[in-house]
Amino acid sequence: MNIITISREFGSGGRELGKRLADLLGYDYYDSEIIAAIAEKSGLDKGYIEKALDQHGWQNYPITFHSSFMSPSYTDPNRVELLLDQKTVLEEIAAQGKNCIIIGRNADVLLERFKPFRIFVCAEMEAKIKRCFERAPKEENLTEKEMRRKIKQVDKARAQTRAILSGSSWGDPEGYHLTVNTTGWDLKELAKALAGFTTAYFESQKD
Amino acid sequence: MNIITISREFGSGGRELGKRLADLLGYDYYDSEIIAAIAEKSGLDKGYIEKALDQHGWQNYPITFHSSFMSPSYTDPNRVELLLDQKTVLEEIAAQGKNCIIIGRNADVLLERFKPFRIFVCAEMEAKIKRCFERAPKEENLTEKEMRRKIKQVDKARAQTRAILSGSSWGDPEGYHLTVNTTGWDLKELAKALAGFTTAYFESQKD
Repeated sequence: MNIITISREFGSGGRELGKRLADLLGYDYYDSEIIAAIAEKSGLDKGYIEKALDQHGWQNYPITFHSSFMSPSYTDPNRVELLLDQKTVLEEIAAQGKNCIIIGRNADVLLERFKPFRIFVCAEMEAKIKRCFERAPKEENLTEKEMRRKIKQVDKARAQTRAILSGSSWGDPEGYHLTVNTTGWDLKELAKALAGFTTAYFESQKD
Repeated sequence: MNIITISREFGSGGRELGKRLADLLGYDYYDSEIIAAIAEKSGLDKGYIEKALDQHGWQNYPITFHSSFMSPSYTDPNRVELLLDQKTVLEEIAAQGKNCIIIGRNADVLLERFKPFRIFVCAEMEAKIKRCFERAPKEENLTEKEMRRKIKQVDKARAQTRAILSGSSWGDPEGYHLTVNTTGWDLKELAKALAGFTTAYFESQKD
Protein backbone atom coordinates (compact mmCIF):
# COMPACT_ATOMS: atom_id res chain seq x y z
CA MET A 1 0.00 0.00 0.00
CA ASN A 2 1.29 3.45 -0.93
CA ILE A 3 0.15 6.49 1.04
CA ILE A 4 0.96 10.02 -0.11
CA THR A 5 0.35 12.87 2.30
CA ILE A 6 0.10 16.44 1.10
CA SER A 7 0.73 19.28 3.52
CA ARG A 8 0.41 22.71 2.00
CA GLU A 9 0.55 26.44 2.48
CA PHE A 10 -2.82 28.14 2.21
CA GLY A 11 -3.32 29.30 -1.38
CA SER A 12 -0.48 27.20 -2.81
CA GLY A 13 -2.79 24.96 -4.84
CA GLY A 14 -1.84 21.88 -2.84
CA ARG A 15 -5.38 20.55 -2.71
CA GLU A 16 -5.93 20.78 -6.48
CA LEU A 17 -2.50 19.27 -7.05
CA GLY A 18 -3.35 16.37 -4.73
CA LYS A 19 -6.64 15.71 -6.52
CA ARG A 20 -4.95 15.72 -9.91
CA LEU A 21 -2.20 13.43 -8.64
CA ALA A 22 -4.78 10.98 -7.23
CA ASP A 23 -6.57 10.93 -10.60
CA LEU A 24 -3.33 10.29 -12.48
CA LEU A 25 -2.18 7.52 -10.15
CA GLY A 26 -5.61 5.99 -9.66
CA TYR A 27 -5.32 6.44 -5.87
CA ASP A 28 -8.17 7.08 -3.43
CA TYR A 29 -8.38 10.71 -2.39
CA TYR A 30 -9.21 11.96 1.11
CA ASP A 31 -9.90 15.55 1.98
CA SER A 32 -13.34 16.69 3.25
CA GLU A 33 -14.21 13.01 3.65
CA ILE A 34 -12.14 13.03 6.84
CA ILE A 35 -14.15 15.81 8.44
CA ALA A 36 -17.35 14.01 7.43
CA ALA A 37 -16.14 10.83 9.13
CA ILE A 38 -15.24 12.74 12.31
CA ALA A 39 -18.69 14.33 12.27
CA GLU A 40 -20.24 10.90 12.14
CA LYS A 41 -18.12 9.70 15.07
CA SER A 42 -18.57 12.74 17.26
CA GLY A 43 -22.10 13.76 16.38
CA LEU A 44 -20.84 17.34 15.97
CA ASP A 45 -21.45 19.66 13.05
CA LYS A 46 -18.94 19.51 10.15
CA GLY A 47 -18.45 23.28 10.05
CA TYR A 48 -17.80 23.34 13.77
CA ILE A 49 -15.29 20.47 13.55
CA GLU A 50 -13.40 22.11 10.74
CA LYS A 51 -13.16 25.36 12.68
CA ALA A 52 -12.10 23.59 15.88
CA LEU A 53 -9.38 21.58 14.14
CA ASP A 54 -8.12 24.44 12.00
CA GLN A 55 -8.12 27.21 14.63
CA HIS A 56 -7.26 30.09 12.39
CA GLY A 57 -8.07 32.98 14.64
CA TRP A 58 -7.96 35.38 11.72
CA GLN A 59 -11.76 35.24 11.50
CA ASN A 60 -12.19 36.78 14.90
CA TYR A 61 -9.87 39.69 15.07
CA PRO A 62 -10.13 42.20 13.55
CA ILE A 63 -11.90 40.72 10.50
CA THR A 64 -15.20 39.15 11.50
CA PHE A 65 -17.38 37.26 9.06
CA HIS A 66 -19.29 34.90 11.27
CA SER A 67 -20.16 34.80 14.91
CA SER A 68 -21.88 31.99 16.65
CA PHE A 69 -22.64 30.76 20.15
CA MET A 70 -20.98 27.58 19.14
CA SER A 71 -17.79 29.11 17.82
CA PRO A 72 -14.87 26.97 19.06
CA SER A 73 -12.15 28.58 21.15
CA TYR A 74 -8.51 27.71 21.67
CA THR A 75 -9.35 26.16 25.02
CA ASP A 76 -12.31 24.20 23.68
CA PRO A 77 -12.21 20.79 25.42
CA ASN A 78 -13.81 19.25 22.31
CA ARG A 79 -10.66 20.06 20.41
CA VAL A 80 -8.56 17.35 22.00
CA GLU A 81 -11.35 14.82 21.47
CA LEU A 82 -11.57 15.88 17.85
CA LEU A 83 -7.83 15.48 17.35
CA LEU A 84 -8.16 11.95 18.70
CA ASP A 85 -11.12 11.25 16.41
CA GLN A 86 -9.08 12.60 13.50
CA LYS A 87 -6.28 10.18 14.31
CA THR A 88 -8.72 7.26 14.50
CA VAL A 89 -10.28 8.19 11.17
CA LEU A 90 -6.87 8.43 9.49
CA GLU A 91 -5.83 5.05 10.88
CA GLU A 92 -9.05 3.50 9.63
CA ILE A 93 -8.28 4.85 6.17
CA ALA A 94 -4.76 3.40 6.28
CA ALA A 95 -6.06 0.08 7.63
CA GLN A 96 -8.04 -0.40 4.42
CA GLY A 97 -4.68 -1.04 2.78
CA LYS A 98 -5.47 0.85 -0.41
CA ASN A 99 -3.22 3.33 -2.20
CA CYS A 100 -4.36 6.80 -1.28
CA ILE A 101 -3.59 10.50 -1.09
CA ILE A 102 -4.52 12.42 2.04
CA ILE A 103 -4.71 16.21 2.10
CA GLY A 104 -3.64 17.97 5.28
CA ARG A 105 -4.90 16.84 8.70
CA ASN A 106 -1.30 16.13 9.79
CA ALA A 107 -1.58 12.72 8.18
CA ASP A 108 2.20 12.77 7.56
CA VAL A 109 2.77 12.71 11.33
CA LEU A 110 -0.26 10.69 12.44
CA LEU A 111 0.34 7.93 9.90
CA GLU A 112 4.13 7.90 10.28
CA ARG A 113 4.23 4.14 10.92
CA PHE A 114 2.73 3.52 7.47
CA LYS A 115 5.73 5.31 5.93
CA PRO A 116 3.82 7.71 3.69
CA PHE A 117 5.53 9.70 0.94
CA ARG A 118 5.36 13.18 2.44
CA ILE A 119 4.92 16.14 0.12
CA PHE A 120 4.86 19.78 1.20
CA VAL A 121 3.42 22.27 -1.28
CA CYS A 122 4.41 25.93 -1.12
CA ALA A 123 4.30 28.97 -3.39
CA GLU A 124 5.55 32.53 -3.48
CA MET A 125 3.34 34.89 -1.49
CA GLU A 126 2.21 36.92 -4.54
CA ALA A 127 1.12 33.73 -6.29
CA LYS A 128 -0.80 32.62 -3.20
CA ILE A 129 -2.59 35.97 -2.92
CA LYS A 130 -3.58 35.81 -6.59
CA ARG A 131 -4.87 32.27 -6.23
CA CYS A 132 -6.84 33.09 -3.08
CA PHE A 133 -8.56 36.05 -4.74
CA GLU A 134 -9.53 33.89 -7.69
CA ARG A 135 -11.12 31.35 -5.35
CA ALA A 136 -12.54 33.66 -2.66
CA PRO A 137 -16.28 33.48 -1.92
CA LYS A 138 -18.08 36.54 -3.31
CA GLU A 139 -19.02 37.86 0.12
CA GLU A 140 -15.46 37.80 1.42
CA ASN A 141 -14.29 41.08 -0.08
CA LEU A 142 -10.84 41.29 1.52
CA THR A 143 -8.24 43.89 0.64
CA GLU A 144 -4.87 42.61 -0.53
CA LYS A 145 -3.39 43.41 2.86
CA GLU A 146 -6.13 41.45 4.61
CA MET A 147 -5.67 38.51 2.26
CA ARG A 148 -1.95 38.44 2.98
CA ARG A 149 -2.76 38.48 6.69
CA LYS A 150 -5.32 35.69 6.29
CA ILE A 151 -2.80 33.48 4.48
CA LYS A 152 -0.23 33.99 7.21
CA GLN A 153 -2.76 33.31 9.97
CA VAL A 154 -4.11 30.12 8.40
CA ASP A 155 -0.57 28.81 8.01
CA LYS A 156 0.34 29.86 11.52
CA ALA A 157 -2.60 27.83 12.83
CA ARG A 158 -1.49 24.84 10.77
CA ALA A 159 2.01 25.15 12.21
CA GLN A 160 0.59 25.37 15.75
CA THR A 161 -1.56 22.27 15.34
CA ARG A 162 1.41 20.36 14.01
CA ALA A 163 3.49 21.51 16.96
CA ILE A 164 1.05 19.70 19.28
CA LEU A 165 1.69 16.45 17.42
CA SER A 166 5.32 16.49 16.35
CA GLY A 167 8.79 17.64 17.25
CA SER A 168 9.51 18.62 13.66
CA SER A 169 8.34 21.97 12.35
CA TRP A 170 5.55 22.44 9.83
CA GLY A 171 7.06 23.31 6.47
CA ASP A 172 10.65 22.41 7.42
CA PRO A 173 11.92 20.53 4.32
CA GLU A 174 13.73 17.96 6.44
CA GLY A 175 10.34 16.71 7.59
CA TYR A 176 9.12 15.88 4.06
CA HIS A 177 10.40 13.82 1.17
CA LEU A 178 9.70 16.57 -1.32
CA THR A 179 8.84 20.25 -1.10
CA VAL A 180 7.27 21.57 -4.26
CA ASN A 181 6.92 25.22 -5.19
CA THR A 182 3.88 25.62 -7.48
CA THR A 183 4.83 29.15 -8.60
CA GLY A 184 5.13 29.26 -12.38
CA TRP A 185 3.74 25.78 -12.93
CA ASP A 186 0.54 24.71 -14.62
CA LEU A 187 -0.80 22.39 -11.90
CA LYS A 188 -1.80 19.82 -14.50
CA GLU A 189 1.80 19.58 -15.71
CA LEU A 190 3.15 19.61 -12.17
CA ALA A 191 0.84 16.73 -11.22
CA LYS A 192 2.26 14.70 -14.11
CA ALA A 193 5.84 15.41 -13.02
CA LEU A 194 4.95 14.48 -9.45
CA ALA A 195 3.23 11.27 -10.51
CA GLY A 196 6.49 10.16 -12.10
CA PHE A 197 8.52 11.15 -9.08
CA THR A 198 6.33 9.41 -6.50
CA THR A 199 6.11 6.27 -8.64
CA ALA A 200 9.92 6.20 -8.80
CA TYR A 201 10.03 6.58 -5.02
CA PHE A 202 7.69 3.67 -4.29
CA GLU A 203 9.56 1.52 -6.82
CA SER A 204 12.88 2.32 -5.10
CA GLN A 205 11.46 1.27 -1.73
CA LYS A 206 10.67 -2.23 -3.00
CA ASP A 207 14.34 -3.18 -3.35
CA MET B 1 19.16 26.01 -23.12
CA ASN B 2 18.24 24.40 -19.81
CA ILE B 3 20.20 25.28 -16.68
CA ILE B 4 19.72 23.37 -13.44
CA THR B 5 21.23 24.81 -10.28
CA ILE B 6 21.79 22.69 -7.20
CA SER B 7 22.08 24.32 -3.80
CA ARG B 8 22.62 21.92 -0.95
CA GLU B 9 23.14 21.40 2.72
CA PHE B 10 26.60 20.16 3.62
CA GLY B 11 26.53 16.37 3.78
CA SER B 12 23.18 16.00 2.02
CA GLY B 13 24.68 14.32 -1.06
CA GLY B 14 23.69 17.19 -3.34
CA ARG B 15 26.94 17.12 -5.27
CA GLU B 16 26.77 13.40 -6.05
CA LEU B 17 23.10 13.78 -6.94
CA GLY B 18 23.94 16.62 -9.32
CA LYS B 19 26.67 14.61 -11.01
CA ARG B 20 24.37 11.63 -11.48
CA LEU B 21 21.62 13.88 -12.81
CA ALA B 22 24.01 15.47 -15.31
CA ASP B 23 25.07 12.01 -16.51
CA LEU B 24 21.46 10.88 -16.92
CA LEU B 25 20.38 14.01 -18.77
CA GLY B 26 23.58 14.37 -20.78
CA TYR B 27 24.12 17.89 -19.43
CA ASP B 28 27.45 19.58 -18.81
CA TYR B 29 28.43 19.58 -15.14
CA TYR B 30 30.12 22.45 -13.31
CA ASP B 31 31.51 22.21 -9.83
CA SER B 32 35.24 22.57 -9.11
CA GLU B 33 35.60 23.80 -12.72
CA ILE B 34 34.27 27.15 -11.54
CA ILE B 35 36.96 27.60 -8.89
CA ALA B 36 39.58 26.61 -11.49
CA ALA B 37 38.28 29.28 -13.87
CA ILE B 38 38.34 31.92 -11.13
CA ALA B 39 41.91 30.91 -10.30
CA GLU B 40 42.86 31.46 -13.92
CA LYS B 41 41.22 34.91 -13.95
CA SER B 42 42.57 36.09 -10.61
CA GLY B 43 45.95 34.42 -10.55
CA LEU B 44 45.19 33.26 -7.01
CA ASP B 45 45.55 29.78 -5.60
CA LYS B 46 42.50 27.46 -5.93
CA GLY B 47 42.57 26.43 -2.28
CA TYR B 48 42.70 30.05 -1.21
CA ILE B 49 39.81 31.01 -3.48
CA GLU B 50 37.64 28.20 -2.21
CA LYS B 51 38.30 29.20 1.37
CA ALA B 52 37.67 32.87 0.69
CA LEU B 53 34.38 32.20 -1.11
CA ASP B 54 33.14 29.59 1.34
CA GLN B 55 34.12 31.31 4.61
CA HIS B 56 33.22 28.55 6.98
CA GLY B 57 34.91 29.78 10.10
CA TRP B 58 34.59 26.36 11.72
CA GLN B 59 38.19 25.58 10.75
CA ASN B 60 39.56 28.32 12.93
CA TYR B 61 37.85 28.04 16.25
CA PRO B 62 38.18 25.82 18.20
CA ILE B 63 39.02 23.08 15.67
CA THR B 64 42.17 23.88 13.74
CA PHE B 65 43.46 21.70 10.92
CA HIS B 66 45.40 24.11 8.80
CA SER B 67 47.00 27.43 9.39
CA SER B 68 48.55 29.58 6.77
CA PHE B 69 49.90 33.09 6.34
CA MET B 70 47.55 33.34 3.42
CA SER B 71 44.41 32.21 5.21
CA PRO B 72 41.55 34.48 4.09
CA SER B 73 39.61 36.47 6.66
CA TYR B 74 36.04 37.76 6.69
CA THR B 75 37.29 41.21 5.84
CA ASP B 76 39.57 40.02 3.06
CA PRO B 77 39.29 42.62 0.27
CA ASN B 78 39.96 39.87 -2.27
CA ARG B 79 36.64 38.35 -1.32
CA VAL B 80 34.53 40.94 -3.11
CA GLU B 81 36.73 40.68 -6.20
CA LEU B 82 36.38 36.92 -6.09
CA LEU B 83 32.59 37.13 -5.84
CA LEU B 84 32.65 39.31 -8.96
CA ASP B 85 34.95 36.87 -10.75
CA GLN B 86 32.60 34.07 -9.75
CA LYS B 87 29.68 35.93 -11.31
CA THR B 88 31.63 36.51 -14.52
CA VAL B 89 32.61 32.84 -14.75
CA LEU B 90 29.00 31.72 -14.23
CA GLU B 91 27.77 34.10 -16.92
CA GLU B 92 30.40 32.84 -19.32
CA ILE B 93 29.17 29.30 -18.71
CA ALA B 94 25.55 30.34 -19.35
CA ALA B 95 26.58 32.31 -22.46
CA GLN B 96 27.78 29.08 -24.06
CA GLY B 97 24.09 28.21 -24.40
CA LYS B 98 24.52 24.55 -23.50
CA ASN B 99 22.35 22.54 -21.12
CA CYS B 100 24.16 22.29 -17.81
CA ILE B 101 24.01 21.62 -14.11
CA ILE B 102 25.82 23.93 -11.72
CA ILE B 103 26.60 22.95 -8.14
CA GLY B 104 26.47 25.66 -5.51
CA ARG B 105 28.19 29.04 -6.03
CA ASN B 106 24.82 30.81 -5.73
CA ALA B 107 24.25 30.15 -9.41
CA ASP B 108 20.47 30.13 -8.77
CA VAL B 109 20.67 33.81 -7.83
CA LEU B 110 23.53 34.94 -10.08
CA LEU B 111 22.02 33.36 -13.20
CA GLU B 112 18.42 34.31 -12.38
CA ARG B 113 17.87 35.93 -15.79
CA PHE B 114 18.54 32.59 -17.49
CA LYS B 115 15.61 31.11 -15.54
CA PRO B 116 17.37 28.05 -14.17
CA PHE B 117 15.47 25.18 -12.60
CA ARG B 118 16.46 25.64 -8.96
CA ILE B 119 16.87 22.57 -6.77
CA PHE B 120 17.69 22.63 -3.07
CA VAL B 121 18.98 19.39 -1.56
CA CYS B 122 18.60 18.70 2.16
CA ALA B 123 18.71 15.72 4.49
CA GLU B 124 18.02 14.88 8.10
CA MET B 125 20.93 15.79 10.40
CA GLU B 126 21.71 12.18 11.39
CA ALA B 127 21.92 11.19 7.72
CA LYS B 128 24.26 14.14 7.02
CA ILE B 129 26.53 13.24 9.92
CA LYS B 130 26.73 9.63 8.71
CA ARG B 131 27.51 10.73 5.17
CA CYS B 132 30.18 13.20 6.30
CA PHE B 133 31.96 10.56 8.39
CA GLU B 134 31.97 8.16 5.44
CA ARG B 135 33.60 10.81 3.27
CA ALA B 136 35.87 12.53 5.79
CA PRO B 137 39.61 12.70 5.06
CA LYS B 138 41.53 10.28 7.29
CA GLU B 139 43.34 13.02 9.17
CA GLU B 140 40.12 14.83 10.12
CA ASN B 141 39.19 12.71 13.15
CA LEU B 142 36.20 14.71 14.41
CA THR B 143 33.89 13.60 17.19
CA GLU B 144 30.20 13.37 16.34
CA LYS B 145 29.56 16.61 18.21
CA GLU B 146 32.30 18.37 16.20
CA MET B 147 30.93 16.99 12.93
CA ARG B 148 27.46 18.27 13.77
CA ARG B 149 28.99 21.65 14.52
CA LYS B 150 30.98 21.64 11.27
CA ILE B 151 27.84 20.88 9.24
CA LYS B 152 25.98 23.75 10.87
CA GLN B 153 28.89 26.15 10.37
CA VAL B 154 29.38 25.31 6.71
CA ASP B 155 25.68 25.83 6.05
CA LYS B 156 25.67 29.04 8.07
CA ALA B 157 28.47 30.36 5.87
CA ARG B 158 26.52 29.39 2.74
CA ALA B 159 23.48 31.20 4.08
CA GLN B 160 25.58 34.28 4.83
CA THR B 161 27.12 34.38 1.36
CA ARG B 162 23.67 34.08 -0.19
CA ALA B 163 22.43 36.92 2.02
CA ILE B 164 24.99 39.21 0.35
CA LEU B 165 23.49 38.43 -3.04
CA SER B 166 19.78 37.96 -2.55
CA GLY B 167 16.75 39.05 -0.55
CA SER B 168 15.49 35.48 -0.32
CA SER B 169 16.88 33.17 2.33
CA TRP B 170 19.16 30.22 1.64
CA GLY B 171 17.14 27.03 1.98
CA ASP B 172 13.72 28.73 2.04
CA PRO B 173 11.59 26.48 -0.21
CA GLU B 174 9.87 29.47 -1.81
CA GLY B 175 13.19 30.37 -3.41
CA TYR B 176 13.55 27.06 -5.26
CA HIS B 177 11.42 25.04 -7.65
CA LEU B 178 12.01 21.83 -5.75
CA THR B 179 13.45 20.93 -2.36
CA VAL B 180 14.55 17.33 -2.16
CA ASN B 181 15.26 15.41 1.03
CA THR B 182 17.79 12.67 0.26
CA THR B 183 17.19 10.80 3.55
CA GLY B 184 16.15 7.22 2.84
CA TRP B 185 16.88 7.43 -0.89
CA ASP B 186 19.47 5.60 -2.93
CA LEU B 187 20.97 8.60 -4.77
CA LYS B 188 21.02 6.66 -8.03
CA GLU B 189 17.27 6.11 -7.82
CA LEU B 190 16.66 9.68 -6.71
CA ALA B 191 18.65 11.01 -9.67
CA LYS B 192 16.39 9.02 -12.01
CA ALA B 193 13.25 10.41 -10.36
CA LEU B 194 14.70 13.93 -10.59
CA ALA B 195 15.65 13.50 -14.24
CA GLY B 196 12.00 12.78 -15.02
CA PHE B 197 10.79 15.72 -12.96
CA THR B 198 13.16 18.28 -14.45
CA THR B 199 12.47 17.06 -17.98
CA ALA B 200 8.74 17.51 -17.33
CA TYR B 201 9.45 21.02 -16.08
CA PHE B 202 11.41 22.13 -19.13
CA GLU B 203 8.76 20.58 -21.40
CA SER B 204 6.03 22.52 -19.58
CA GLN B 205 7.91 25.79 -20.07
CA LYS B 206 7.88 25.40 -23.85
CA ASP B 207 4.11 25.89 -24.07
